[in-house]
Amino acid sequence: MDAETLARRCVEAMWEEDRASQALGMQVIATGECRAEVSMTVREDMVNGHSMCHGGMIFTLADTAFAFACNSQNQAAVAASCTIDYLRPAQLGDVLTAVAEAVHQGGRSGLYDVIISNQEQAIVAHFRGRSARISRPVIEEESA
Amino acid sequence: MDAETLARRCVEAMWEEDRASQALGMQVIATGECRAEVSMTVREDMVNGHSMCHGGMIFTLADTAFAFACNSQNQAAVAASCTIDYLRPAQLGDVLTAVAEAVHQGGRSGLYDVIISNQEQAIVAHFRGRSARISRPVIEEESA
Amino acid sequence: MDAETLARRCVEAMWEEDRASQALGMQVIATGECRAEVSMTVREDMVNGHSMCHGGMIFTLADTAFAFACNSQNQAAVAASCTIDYLRPAQLGDVLTAVAEAVHQGGRSGLYDVIISNQEQAIVAHFRGRSARISRPVIEEESA
Amino acid sequence: MDAETLARRCVEAMWEEDRASQALGMQVIATGECRAEVSMTVREDMVNGHSMCHGGMIFTLADTAFAFACNSQNQAAVAASCTIDYLRPAQLGDVLTAVAEAVHQGGRSGLYDVIISNQEQAIVAHFRGRSARISRPVIEEESA
Repeated sequence: MDAETLARRCVEAMWEEDRASQALGMQVIATGECRAEVSMTVREDMVNGHSMCHGGMIFTLADTAFAFACNSQNQAAVAASCTIDYLRPAQLGDVLTAVAEAVHQGGRSGLYDVIISNQEQAIVAHFRGRSARISRPVIEEESA
Repeated sequence: MDAETLARRCVEAMWEEDRASQALGMQVIATGECRAEVSMTVREDMVNGHSMCHGGMIFTLADTAFAFACNSQNQAAVAASCTIDYLRPAQLGDVLTAVAEAVHQGGRSGLYDVIISNQEQAIVAHFRGRSARISRPVIEEESA
Repeated sequence: MDAETLARRCVEAMWEEDRASQALGMQVIATGECRAEVSMTVREDMVNGHSMCHGGMIFTLADTAFAFACNSQNQAAVAASCTIDYLRPAQLGDVLTAVAEAVHQGGRSGLYDVIISNQEQAIVAHFRGRSARISRPVIEEESA
Repeated sequence: MDAETLARRCVEAMWEEDRASQALGMQVIATGECRAEVSMTVREDMVNGHSMCHGGMIFTLADTAFAFACNSQNQAAVAASCTIDYLRPAQLGDVLTAVAEAVHQGGRSGLYDVIISNQEQAIVAHFRGRSARISRPVIEEESA
């Protein structure tokens, strides 16, 4: 199986089980080796009274894209540490897209950058995640 | 109004509008000047197929506690940057509590630490947030 | 004065006073609006017994490039917070180059990425810095 | 050998080889299991023209204390990622002290907090470091 197909299968398997990302209405836009793109529309239950999106929802979108990217080589990995820098607010109704890419993927630890933009391509936040592999596959070898 | 009362009023006003934290079933446990304690039970719609809580949900809980702490002096503030380090997973049914406290609160910028623990007092994650005040009050001067 | 010339003048003025960067043998390779490139050779007094460069020296190189980049518009700024991720060690004799660029420069706060590479263009570390302007110019208006 | 003695021996061995920390005039004040205290006086060659200490020098002091703390159990570890938040400037002549303590030390990865204060016990910066063990001892088993 080539790297792109393997990445897609890993993300499909993760997505199937990821009730949190599903409940937030996320959509997987693209997958690939050590990268992933996920979008989410800012809903009523994600904002405050000023219609501004909770920072945790923006982080969660980025974290999902990060997880899909760092698990895409069929070596299960978990987030060890993440940093987010907020540049501008997201509003009710905005369609946010998080694009995750590996800055570095070593044998065990990885460093990934995720850029979160709105529907006008304005950058909402920058996220940097550190992953650690945990010595098991994402999907069964047979299906891989 | 004393600092503790002001803090409580600010958090009440923020909570009223914070549909995201409400939708996640959070509960405000305690408030105070530059501190806050918020809890959340890990639900079915916050986990993956292995019953492990999405890291973004843990972050969101911490971020809410951070927001309540850094807005408690009736000077509205937003998160500029946050870092989270995950120490152990949270599971379906766990009751997580985030305790936020100021490390430093200057005239404009603040630095806050949030510790997220489970019902057995085991630390799940450490969060550090950087806030920036935006030159408006949290609650109207009359009500303050 | 155009932006590139102003940037160069600001860096020249800062360099003149920056005894720490001078003492470490740094060299300014390039300047520009919201960017800067600085290099440093890893000396005997920067390593441990295994000839590996102290992480603090790598950080200091990046921090200097960051400072030059975020002060290049003649609005003095200080570092508020910085994160560094180390990817590979630097060795005695390595020539390290730090390239700093703005990810975002707002009216007051900035976010800068700095990539530190060795003489073989292998990336040694990624640095992300958050700056805050302090309401004074870097150089006098007359000279600007 | 008890944990405190082992920690002291590990730090002695690291100090012996740490030319960078020696060149900056650091002094080891205290050692212990997963903790360390190191001080440094801000010298002429660490400041800029306004007599303010270079942020990289403050970071380097913290990084040394972090390294001594995370190597104190005779399992060699390297810094994977570090974040520093600057609260107030350090000046020429200030005596800075960095106190490093484990927030968490797992089998492989560790999380350490370092607080850097000046001679008036005012906090200059907060540093958080993530370490990774590299499967070799710090000192030979015989000497351990």
